[in-house]
Parts: sequence; structure tokens; C-alpha cells
Amino acid sequence: MHSIDFYRAEFMDYLDSKFVVQEPTNLYEPINYILKLGGKRLRPVLALLTAEIFDGSYKEALNAALAIEVFHNFSLVHDDIMDAAPVRRGKTTVHEKWDTNTGILSGDAMLICAYQLFENYEPKTFRALAELFSKTALQVCEGQQYDVDFETRDDVSLPEYLKMIEYKTAVLVAAAMKMGGIVAQTSKENQELIYGFGLNLGIAFQLQDDLLDVFGDPETFGKQVGGDIIENKKTYLFIKAIESGSTTVKKELLDLYSIQPKEPEDKIEAVKSIFQESGASKATQEAISLYTEKAFEILESLDISDDKKLILKDFGENLMRRTV
Amino acid sequence: MHSIDFYRAEFMDYLDSKFVVQEPTNLYEPINYILKLGGKRLRPVLALLTAEIFDGSYKEALNAALAIEVFHNFSLVHDDIMDAAPVRRGKTTVHEKWDTNTGILSGDAMLICAYQLFENYEPKTFRALAELFSKTALQVCEGQQYDVDFETRDDVSLPEYLKMIEYKTAVLVAAAMKMGGIVAQTSKENQELIYGFGLNLGIAFQLQDDLLDVFGDPETFGKQVGGDIIENKKTYLFIKAIESGSTTVKKELLDLYSIQPKEPEDKIEAVKSIFQESGASKATQEAISLYTEKAFEILESLDISDDKKLILKDFGENLMRRTV
Repeated sequence: MHSIDFYRAEFMDYLDSKFVVQEPTNLYEPINYILKLGGKRLRPVLALLTAEIFDGSYKEALNAALAIEVFHNFSLVHDDIMDAAPVRRGKTTVHEKWDTNTGILSGDAMLICAYQLFENYEPKTFRALAELFSKTALQVCEGQQYDVDFETRDDVSLPEYLKMIEYKTAVLVAAAMKMGGIVAQTSKENQELIYGFGLNLGIAFQLQDDLLDVFGDPETFGKQVGGDIIENKKTYLFIKAIESGSTTVKKELLDLYSIQPKEPEDKIEAVKSIFQESGASKATQEAISLYTEKAFEILESLDISDDKKLILKDFGENLMRRTV
Repeated sequence: MHSIDFYRAEFMDYLDSKFVVQEPTNLYEPINYILKLGGKRLRPVLALLTAEIFDGSYKEALNAALAIEVFHNFSLVHDDIMDAAPVRRGKTTVHEKWDTNTGILSGDAMLICAYQLFENYEPKTFRALAELFSKTALQVCEGQQYDVDFETRDDVSLPEYLKMIEYKTAVLVAAAMKMGGIVAQTSKENQELIYGFGLNLGIAFQLQDDLLDVFGDPETFGKQVGGDIIENKKTYLFIKAIESGSTTVKKELLDLYSIQPKEPEDKIEAVKSIFQESGASKATQEAISLYTEKAFEILESLDISDDKKLILKDFGENLMRRTV
């Protein structure tokens, strides 16, 4: 086993070696740009780590890890078009730096490139990886569609919200880990268990993201703190506050979510107070703990040594302590 | 062997059975809409026909044929966004009927659904089909990028134009036929030969399309006759006229291609005359014959019976006589 930093560095070397600009440059330059923009590289690192947890070599998992990262960045490029987002990881988004058509077409090419990376495996593994990938990719599209649908709905329930973040975020984390297991040729049972671990960790990760978006430290958090509030996003915090707050609080929150002031500071502060006083922040923290615990429980059934379980647990705990 | 109409009908039945609207409906309704909008179904029919040419059953080729058609329609949905096209096959385009974001996301889902259709084959065939599909899909993206790049260039050469239509159109026709061969488990040599047949036929088909766009019968041609001229598209006709016309004719054509009049009839007529008088129409017709002949020559080397060669030749000749 190696350190997380080691896996990240190895992954970055591999990414750099695999993606170079080729003809037509207007198609491949944006792909290189977004792939080299940075990010935590959480998903590919998990794929490499998991391969070694199951006694495989991280090197065998590099192509699967890269496929996951390329897909993740494809979804960012297309999502940023849909959200008209000007900035990603502190840099100009693809459709802003080039144009919308470039964003669409380069994104399409990335999705295909992701599949091509599985061609480095023999037919049975290729098939297992590509099947898992297709299922997951389609769920991510469905999750994005639910997210879009929720924008114009006032009655989104917590289970619906949880299903949306499961599809939009968690399944890809789960698939990254399962791919590590597939490449390492671990048992079907272990594959399902590690998928469950990743899924619950992924849900906790997204809820943590919702929380950081509101209460994060502007110094360390990559995105604009309060961004979800500015965009009136119906997150776990919002739905919980609406469900558990008094009629007055509920009305106040709905009023605040019906405006988009040019100077959003007052609105952000008011919403923050409601999230705290209604108990929504606390409930979100509890949900994060719940999903993290669910993930750790699944670990117990895994057929691996205790020190390896500890590595996965440490990883999960660090993830939940993050400020970025 | 069956008739082309039979293959088309069987294909349509299969398409209808495989694509039904599911949740989230905002994602899957547009997919059903575009897939059931009509069209010649040229590519899937060729996949089924080719499977039987190589002594396979068309039934085994249905999933591959559907993957090709789903991909083709995915590319239409995204291309129509990029071209801001309001109409496709006489009906409203997806991004016009819904919106651009729906067009992007439903298109993405279609690309993934296309890959999933290969899961109906055993690992080796799955891999052969998916590899060919990825390579082809990426070339189609590259072809589309060249097409976009050409819009702002004045120096597009004939070889560049031919490479663009090869990538954007011909490789998918070729891949459809090769997939029929893969499913029927014909020899590698036959697979390469039928790919070459499809590729040359595909180039001839696109050149024919360019010609029909200008000289087609408005009664039978599906699109607006003169559409390429209205949009100042640099087709084979245009490039040839610029190359072979006199300095005066060249200047006249460039002037006509620098305007976009509200009433385009005069412009269309003027450009049509130049295409005919400069010999560009004749040269295009000759190129169509040349690529059709190339395709037919490849047929000779194929390891199939003469009556089957005749079926493919008849298909090619009918395609080149088409008015739609």
C-alpha cells in the first residue's frame, strides 16, 4: 500500500502522458484544459487505492481510474454549460473560454475517450468495466435531470433529494471503488460491498459539500461560500429547514429563496441563521455521520485484513473532516 | 436474404420495443421523440443486410444496428444545437421543442444507451463492437469539429473537405456494415473489405447529398433545397467551382457567399448557374461515380457469392439514384 499523495501523483503522471493535444486542436485543447485544471482527484485515487486494498497493483487500475476522471470532467463541462457557470476550480469554464458549441462537442469526445480507456483490459474485464461504467454514467445523467427538475419544483422531499445526490454524485464514487476491485479480480461479494461503502461515503461527501457551501471557510473552500443560497438551491439543509421549521420560519425562508439580490450578504446571513436555528444544520451533520457510519459498517463484512479496513476508515474520516 | 423494406420494418419494431419513456421523463421523452421522428434508417438497415450477406441472421445484428441508429440520432441532436437548426425531418428539433439543456443531456444519455446495446453480445463480440464504435464515434466528433472549423476558413481544399465528410458521415456507414460482419463472425479480411465498401459508398452518399441540396426536387427532397447555399456552406461544389472557375466567376461566387439575403431565391439561382457553368456540378457527379465505382471494385475481392455481391451493388446503385 502507498500514501494517498503517492496515488495522486502517479495518477497525474499517467493523465499527463495519456492526454496530449492532437488534431483537430479546437476539439482536443479544451479536453486537455479541463483535465489539467486541478481538483482533488478523489475518484481516481479511490480506484487505485481500492485495487491495492484487494491485493491488485494500482498500476493495473490506472486506465479505469482515468476513465472515471475523464467522465467526471465531461459531466462538469456539460453541467457548467447547463448552469451557465463562468468559473470552475477558480478558472474560466470551457464554454466561457471557448464557446458553448466547443463545450458540447469536446464533452462528447471525452465521454467516448473514457470508454476507450477500458480497451487496455482483456475482454472479460473490459466488459465488466464498460457495463458498470454505462450504468453509472446513465445514472449520473438521470441525477442531473432530477437536479434540473427540482429547480422548478417546491415539493422536493428528502428521499427525492437523497436519490438525486446518490445518482448525481455517489454512484461514481462507488463505481470508482468497484472498478478497483474488478481490476484486482476480487470476489463478486467484495465488489458489491466496496460499492456499498463508496455509495454511502459518496452521499456523506455530497451532504458535507452542501454544508461547506454554507458554513465553509472562504479561505480554504474552493467555491464561493453561500453559492447554493445565492442560486436558491434546494439542498438537504433547505428541505430540512422547511420540514422542521415553524410556519413563520418556513415563510421567511421561502421569501428569502424567492429573491436574488445583487448584494447577497444579508440574504446569506439570514438563511444561515435559519439553517442553524431550525436545527437543519444539526440534522445535516447527523445525516453525514449516519451515512459515514453505514459505510464503516459495510467495511466490517469485507474479506480483507483489519489494517486495510483501517486505511479505508481513515480515508473516510479524513474526507469528512475536510474543509475543501 | 430479405428485402430492404423487410429489414427496415423489423428494425423499427425492435426500436419501438426497446425505447419506451421511463423516469425521469424529461430525460427520456426527447430520446423517444427523436428516435421515432423517421428518417431513411440507412445505417441500421445496412447492418442487418450485411449480417445476412455474411450468412449471419439479421436478428443477431438488431442490437448493433440500434446502437448505430441511436448514436446517429445523438449526433443529430447535438449538431442541431450547434447549428441552431429549428427543423429536422420536417419536425421541430429537440432543443427547440424542449430547450438547449435538454438537448445536451438527452443526447449524452443516448450516447451511453448506444454502448449499453452491445451488452447483449458475449465479451469478445462486445469488445470488438465497442472498440469499433468508440473509434468511429470519435471520428464523427472530429469530423464535426472540422466542419465547424471550415465555417471560418476561406482556404479549405478538396482533400480536406473529403476527409471531413469521411469522418462526419462515411465512417458510420462503414462501421454499420462492419458490425454486421462482426456479428456474423465473418473473416477479418471480409470485415475490412466491407468497411472499405461502406466508406466509399458513404462518401458518395454525402456528395450526392450536397448535389441534392442544390439541384434536388423540392417535392421529394426532405430538406429545404438551397439550404447549403443559404448558409454559405463550403461543399464539394463550392470548392470545385472556386478552384476551376475563372477569376471573374470566383469573385462573383465569393461575393454571393458573403451575403445572406432575406429573400434568397436570386442568390440560389445565381450560385446554381455558377456551379453548372464552372463544371463543378459535373465534377461532383464524376466524384460520386468514382467513389461508387471504388466501392464496387472492393466488392469483387469479397469472399461471398456473386448473387450477394449483386444485392450490395443494387443497394449502392439505388442509393445513388435517390431523390431524398
